[in-house]
Amino acid sequence: MTNITKHISSAGFVGSGNVATHLAIAIQEAGIKIDAVFSPNKSNSEAFAKEFNCRSLEYYNDFEYDTNLIIIAVPDAKVEKVCKKLDDNGKLYVHTSGITPIESLNSKSRFGVFYPLQTFSKGKELNFAKIPICIEAKYGEDRQMLLDLARKLSTNVSIVNSEKRKILHLTAVIVSNFSNHLYHLADEILGLNGLDFNYLKPLIHETALKINEVHPLDAQTGPARRNDKATIDKHLQMLKKHPDYQYIYQLFSEQIRKKYHG
Amino acid sequence: MTNITKHISSAGFVGSGNVATHLAIAIQEAGIKIDAVFSPNKSNSEAFAKEFNCRSLEYYNDFEYDTNLIIIAVPDAKVEKVCKKLDDNGKLYVHTSGITPIESLNSKSRFGVFYPLQTFSKGKELNFAKIPICIEAKYGEDRQMLLDLARKLSTNVSIVNSEKRKILHLTAVIVSNFSNHLYHLADEILGLNGLDFNYLKPLIHETALKINEVHPLDAQTGPARRNDKATIDKHLQMLKKHPDYQYIYQLFSEQIRKKYHG
Repeated sequence: MTNITKHISSAGFVGSGNVATHLAIAIQEAGIKIDAVFSPNKSNSEAFAKEFNCRSLEYYNDFEYDTNLIIIAVPDAKVEKVCKKLDDNGKLYVHTSGITPIESLNSKSRFGVFYPLQTFSKGKELNFAKIPICIEAKYGEDRQMLLDLARKLSTNVSIVNSEKRKILHLTAVIVSNFSNHLYHLADEILGLNGLDFNYLKPLIHETALKINEVHPLDAQTGPARRNDKATIDKHLQMLKKHPDYQYIYQLFSEQIRKKYHG
Repeated sequence: MTNITKHISSAGFVGSGNVATHLAIAIQEAGIKIDAVFSPNKSNSEAFAKEFNCRSLEYYNDFEYDTNLIIIAVPDAKVEKVCKKLDDNGKLYVHTSGITPIESLNSKSRFGVFYPLQTFSKGKELNFAKIPICIEAKYGEDRQMLLDLARKLSTNVSIVNSEKRKILHLTAVIVSNFSNHLYHLADEILGLNGLDFNYLKPLIHETALKINEVHPLDAQTGPARRNDKATIDKHLQMLKKHPDYQYIYQLFSEQIRKKYHG
């Protein structure tokens, strides 16, 4: 192994999407230099390079010699393939994927995982300070370097193996993507009835914040929780022109009802 | 009509559950006297009376003469029946239900609706200031009195008829009760794998807050949004011992996928 230092001084990115961008902001704010970015999407890559005052690479392996961390922030399905295109040059390679096992990087000598458990969207600023960052690494020394880096970004850092990380990722999809789908579905129904989505925002916020103080099992309210079949039937009737939504309503109401009323 | 004044000086409650309690806190803080409570649940009723320093009634119609607003905060299905037990004595009767039409109170001369669009749980303090309060009333003068009262509690007050209110209620169930069900489901999966629900809290909060800045359609992330079938299949495989959850996962992923990828 070459190029091992005790801390990360400069990082390179492969990928220039939402995860790469938000992570680069946090890393740069923590005082780590962003050396360069490689991305097949040239316009994204150049925008990224401009934002972080770094180079946009023509080739995978043009990172500086003293850039000791390469962050592969590409779609889950591409991690392994992309990693194989990178030289095994003593740098530490990490991916940022929840579902992808650490072994997907074992074409390299030194590898690990730097998984921020969060939803990243363009145009939405993020405070990394409380975001859980899940670390894994082949070697103890690299693990420590990644822990040190993560702790510069967040107070919520832990070592999580690939088996547990994929459970976190699965549940993250459920609470984030699926909840957001419910928000979108509600927005569509409101729109069809000339009502504004703003009506629901305080409720959405309160529902999410309530879990800080009340377990989701105790926090549940509403017709299914009360076993109020008359209201459930009225709602189902209101959704009769939207079989997809009616189906979700029926499924959720039945699951909630069963949980509390057997 | 008797007993009409231009503003509400004292309110009585029928019902002593979560909605009644949270609303009574806000009303009392706004300087309105709570006269009394009637509830068939005597221990709830007495706890309520103690909390608000008011009387717990033995009979439905023992409210003071100068109590000019009676708030019927009982389960949706019971509103009409409960209202019929109350004397038509010139007081203004309102219910707090989303799904229940205003006409359910037409056994009385003066009636209306005071619907706070929020999820109310025991042990979770609420700030009413931004909660949407939807007002409806048979008479213009009563409507104005209810608007004046609501504006003492919240900056987010509007007149909403029964048809639109039931749409708001339907979508409230979808974004709140169903999202909370997803939180609970995730908590169960984490628990089975020795992982703590705390991991997901920052993500749940961010997902809910993101809609302030980004429309839910643009805020969507994750495998279904990306049409990443390999990750979806891995997640479905992980849920094979939980057919109920697997079913939700499949349904949501397919609906999200279709929305973005046809």
